[in-house]
Amino acid sequence: MTKFTDMSRQELMQEHELLISRYNTYKDMGLKLDMSRGKPCKEQLDLINGMFDESVLHGDYNCENGTDSRNYGIIDGIPELKRIFAELLDISENELIVSGNSSLNIMHDMISRALLLGVAQNDRPWKEYSSVKFICPSPGYDRHFAICGLYGIKMLPVKMNPDGPDMDAVEKLAVEDASVKGIWCVPQYSNPEGITYSNRVVERLAKMETKANDFRIFWDNAYFVHDLYEEKKERVMNIIKECKAAGNPDRPYVFASTSKITFPGAGVSVIASSKANIDYAKDQIKIQTIGPDKINQLRHARFLKSAQDIYELMRRHAEIIRPKFEAVNSVLTEELAGKGIASWTTPAGGYFMSFSTVEGCAKRIETLAKEAGLVLTPAGATYPYGIDPNDNNIRISPTVPPLDSLKLSMHLFCVCVQIAAAEKLMK
Amino acid sequence: MTKFTDMSRQELMQEHELLISRYNTYKDMGLKLDMSRGKPCKEQLDLINGMFDESVLHGDYNCENGTDSRNYGIIDGIPELKRIFAELLDISENELIVSGNSSLNIMHDMISRALLLGVAQNDRPWKEYSSVKFICPSPGYDRHFAICGLYGIKMLPVKMNPDGPDMDAVEKLAVEDASVKGIWCVPQYSNPEGITYSNRVVERLAKMETKANDFRIFWDNAYFVHDLYEEKKERVMNIIKECKAAGNPDRPYVFASTSKITFPGAGVSVIASSKANIDYAKDQIKIQTIGPDKINQLRHARFLKSAQDIYELMRRHAEIIRPKFEAVNSVLTEELAGKGIASWTTPAGGYFMSFSTVEGCAKRIETLAKEAGLVLTPAGATYPYGIDPNDNNIRISPTVPPLDSLKLSMHLFCVCVQIAAAEKLMK
Repeated sequence: MTKFTDMSRQELMQEHELLISRYNTYKDMGLKLDMSRGKPCKEQLDLINGMFDESVLHGDYNCENGTDSRNYGIIDGIPELKRIFAELLDISENELIVSGNSSLNIMHDMISRALLLGVAQNDRPWKEYSSVKFICPSPGYDRHFAICGLYGIKMLPVKMNPDGPDMDAVEKLAVEDASVKGIWCVPQYSNPEGITYSNRVVERLAKMETKANDFRIFWDNAYFVHDLYEEKKERVMNIIKECKAAGNPDRPYVFASTSKITFPGAGVSVIASSKANIDYAKDQIKIQTIGPDKINQLRHARFLKSAQDIYELMRRHAEIIRPKFEAVNSVLTEELAGKGIASWTTPAGGYFMSFSTVEGCAKRIETLAKEAGLVLTPAGATYPYGIDPNDNNIRISPTVPPLDSLKLSMHLFCVCVQIAAAEKLMK
Repeated sequence: MTKFTDMSRQELMQEHELLISRYNTYKDMGLKLDMSRGKPCKEQLDLINGMFDESVLHGDYNCENGTDSRNYGIIDGIPELKRIFAELLDISENELIVSGNSSLNIMHDMISRALLLGVAQNDRPWKEYSSVKFICPSPGYDRHFAICGLYGIKMLPVKMNPDGPDMDAVEKLAVEDASVKGIWCVPQYSNPEGITYSNRVVERLAKMETKANDFRIFWDNAYFVHDLYEEKKERVMNIIKECKAAGNPDRPYVFASTSKITFPGAGVSVIASSKANIDYAKDQIKIQTIGPDKINQLRHARFLKSAQDIYELMRRHAEIIRPKFEAVNSVLTEELAGKGIASWTTPAGGYFMSFSTVEGCAKRIETLAKEAGLVLTPAGATYPYGIDPNDNNIRISPTVPPLDSLKLSMHLFCVCVQIAAAEKLMK
């Protein structure tokens, strides 16, 4: 195997010609492939269809505390579901709210209320500051960055290391500037790299000095039980406990949902934090809404049953998507290993892999793929303002396509990668 | 029948003694009665249990446009449900968004985004004004006023007339002050009086000059199909059409929900407005959430079927709650008619009746009732800042209690009213 970087211009041109010929073969197939988003596939959704059985509610609509789930009442979630989440997140039941169908929605609302009202009774609303800034470990989740974009919150990118964000940079930003009000984290099986923050990183986040005394960690634990391998399971430390121990109990907001346990868009979501933060949020949420959809919460509690049953369900999810992650890795290895133009992550959980290539090639790869019928996550989308400073990172979402079409997509992807790399290196 | 107001002090004292003796009889019964909120009763909820039948989804989870309701996608609601609401609200499908389980939540979010971002692309965010004010026809819906309270929006009470808000006062406030940004309306079977705005009122709202060019009508059409009597059905004019005709197409935000058609807290909600407003809102909502619960939307569309079926369902709701409204009216008439101390509304739809008594008596009645085991809507709750300037209005919610206990509650209520009135008039 000759590395692209060791090839002469002549050799690169020959290689490029062969690649273009392969590319045209794919192009002629009139493909329509989509790897742009991290959604469960149909087989995963079918695992949950039992939730629609009449036996789940079986004509008994009362929650265990006697509240009729079909009528108004209960702002912070039904007790049987709070108990399950409290166990999964290892916190107490008065430190969480079980909410509606979208944890993104809770995150958004925590930001908009922080702007309008401040994060605690006696704190200034963030809107009163001339500037509000968030630390954004990058690459990260595009929808976090979109919330900042909507409200004009300045995003400060920070490099991701293999064990989490570059904490030297994070600590420096947090301690120097009172307008730095928060940080976005996907701490376990991160989006897109699949990284789990190390204990040292979590401890530093919990302990670090912040100039703003109303600094908040937005801890989007989206993949908190989303293991691909039982034996390689990773667990991020409990940020709520760490922050409490460090004397910063109100610092973390933890988010999770069943979007990729039951149904994306029709699951239930949760926010956990200190009791003080939860009580403060409840006082505002009860003015925003009379309550969450308790029927759906009851359906979830009865169908999911317990934390242990959820783990068992997640093993069944893993059986469906693990072969897809492995297929991606195996095509990437087959096509690109040893060529000096690519590296990628092989996460033990989550919904994404992160792919890095020669600088300045990501947008070109996206275009080449698109023109041959393969939609990728837009290059740059996982960076603040959509700008990947090196233009070399692409998020891979293996879960949706059936295995055959996934392999086909990945071969095409690898051809695009090599064409872009050859073009860049020929220059 | 002697009017209380015509009685001598001696007669009042005798009457008071008799009333106290009746009151003590009730008190000794150890009652636990609740008429505080406008919720459907159990029999109404049971009308909808068919929604949980497996036959509703029968293993087919795709919306009519082919989208799998179990996965991500669609920000503005599934097409089959948009079509039903478009028919019910007499607007076009691109003028509405079908959303989650709470129309209050949409109202709240429209306010919070107006504060942070303004109501249109080139309008200033309301937060940049030193003061934001809303016109609040009173009595009105306490939860509207609570949103204003949360965000420090100054509430300007305006008297309700039998055909809607006092439009002379509304027009004067709107035209004189650029910080007056909106008005809260429950235009049909209003909460709490059950009044439907007259055509003249609606036309004036649509046409009136406003100093603020970003003035918005928050048109909470909560009871849009909630008739008690087929033959006395009232329909408020279409504010969207009237505003369009008046050259103010972006003025109205219309809200509705199935909270009292299907399930409170587990229904679906809708916002309708100009296409420009809807597009602007969608651009922001798509950052707040990946989408509404489409499975619940699909369940609603399949169960409710059509606008006509919804009208039929509402007739069945009316059969359950109409006797309760009539029982309230009949006890009030029996106990209080001709005594010169009370008047009340007899609405043709909605969830409430409004009761007025001698000035300065409402809080006393609430206390007396509470001490005898009957919880009423807190006196003043239906006014901005919780202050009923005359302390003489009480909201009556007849729907929840079973008929027997409702009648008992109303007799007790009437005893409390007469005690309070006698006390006041003796002074």
